[in-house]
Amino acid sequence: MSSSTTLANLPVRIVLVGTSHPGNIGAVARAMKTMHVSTLRLVTPKLFPHAEATAMASGADDLLAQATVCATLEEAVADCGLILGASARLRSLRLPQMEPREAAGSALVEAHKHPVAFVFGRERTGLTNEELSLCHTLVHIPANPEYSSLNLAMSVQVMCYELLMSSRGPTDVTVVEEASEYATAEEMNYFYTHLQQVMIDTGFLDPAAPKHLMKRLRRLFGRARPDKQELNILRGILSAVNEYGDKHGNKQ
Amino acid sequence: MSSSTTLANLPVRIVLVGTSHPGNIGAVARAMKTMHVSTLRLVTPKLFPHAEATAMASGADDLLAQATVCATLEEAVADCGLILGASARLRSLRLPQMEPREAAGSALVEAHKHPVAFVFGRERTGLTNEELSLCHTLVHIPANPEYSSLNLAMSVQVMCYELLMSSRGPTDVTVVEEASEYATAEEMNYFYTHLQQVMIDTGFLDPAAPKHLMKRLRRLFGRARPDKQELNILRGILSAVNEYGDKHGNKQ
Repeated sequence: MSSSTTLANLPVRIVLVGTSHPGNIGAVARAMKTMHVSTLRLVTPKLFPHAEATAMASGADDLLAQATVCATLEEAVADCGLILGASARLRSLRLPQMEPREAAGSALVEAHKHPVAFVFGRERTGLTNEELSLCHTLVHIPANPEYSSLNLAMSVQVMCYELLMSSRGPTDVTVVEEASEYATAEEMNYFYTHLQQVMIDTGFLDPAAPKHLMKRLRRLFGRARPDKQELNILRGILSAVNEYGDKHGNKQ
Repeated sequence: MSSSTTLANLPVRIVLVGTSHPGNIGAVARAMKTMHVSTLRLVTPKLFPHAEATAMASGADDLLAQATVCATLEEAVADCGLILGASARLRSLRLPQMEPREAAGSALVEAHKHPVAFVFGRERTGLTNEELSLCHTLVHIPANPEYSSLNLAMSVQVMCYELLMSSRGPTDVTVVEEASEYATAEEMNYFYTHLQQVMIDTGFLDPAAPKHLMKRLRRLFGRARPDKQELNILRGILSAVNEYGDKHGNKQ
């Protein structure tokens, strides 16, 4: 299952209200597109379209081209069955409050039934209480209480990141391991025997009591899981130590 | 338990390598501070300090004032026991790969034992393979495969957000690794230098062209992440080889 496709096909909207700086609109578009969220609605932006928006979108300008400009928040969320309003502060409004992770989960469940909107307010002042009263839920991004000024695009980035994460479902654990060809257990054993012999030759290992040390080294190299080429290097080093001794006749 | 305080007191570092635009450094400082991460290290930034960095930091300039500028990545992570490298692409390097959530969990567990670094590369080109080979783990932010261009500050924002989320405690599902105490990057470097010298002494390595071989060995031992005791064993073996040579007067 391609996660990102799932999210791309769901009706999840980002709504920006009263944005002052067109550059921020562009940065939001970019943040959205990296996370496969594509519908942008703008409520009374100060300047839009604008060259700065396009510049900051840097390749996400298709989202800007498709963005809808609305006269009111009501209009922007008219078709939405779930409306979540971003809020930097805790409000005295009696609205349920969620963090982005929980909000993303709810949004994705509901987006199968109806469009969902995440609403972000003005750069300085956020959403008015009246605008928040159109929302079903507040979303608060956890932050340093003494410095909680995530900018607009950062907030959208975090929210869309959680949407992408949620869209992949709980099972999606990516473990990418591309190795060339691992050494076989047998090859590893030859190596350990060789290593042990070198340790005895150099006087590092007491042949009377080799057990504990070898166990530790097996664990160490076992964790690294050498591939065949790497094992060849290690054995090459051991052979060089052998020759280093032999050459000068110090077989012990 | 105040979550944010927990994170603020842990030795978690953000390391930026070769940043071109000073504005990005400022935006990173801001992103960090919103999430209570405060130690910033800069490896060969193009322009720093710089008015644009300060402007973009907008109130997080205390982080800039305290930022350390380093000549190499090695220097920047010398005291770190866990080094995580951000990578937009999947690499063919054989390093474990995590997403930010998992990486945050591991980082916080380990930060109780030793400093942890998150390393972010250049705006256009990221980290070189050589720089990545200093890392224990790659961190990959899930993104739209057709448009994965999170900018630098956005990537740091997402990572630091996950750190803050993780730091808040009991809900975290963290896989706790029980290692004794990992060797630091600096200790590993001493080992690599010693290993290289032994390989030269024994004639295995041509000192004229050591690069490729050392890179492979760093990757191999980096994957294994030796703890301090294991590293002592490895260094003991190397010293035994040294003595094996010296004893019989075959300094080459």
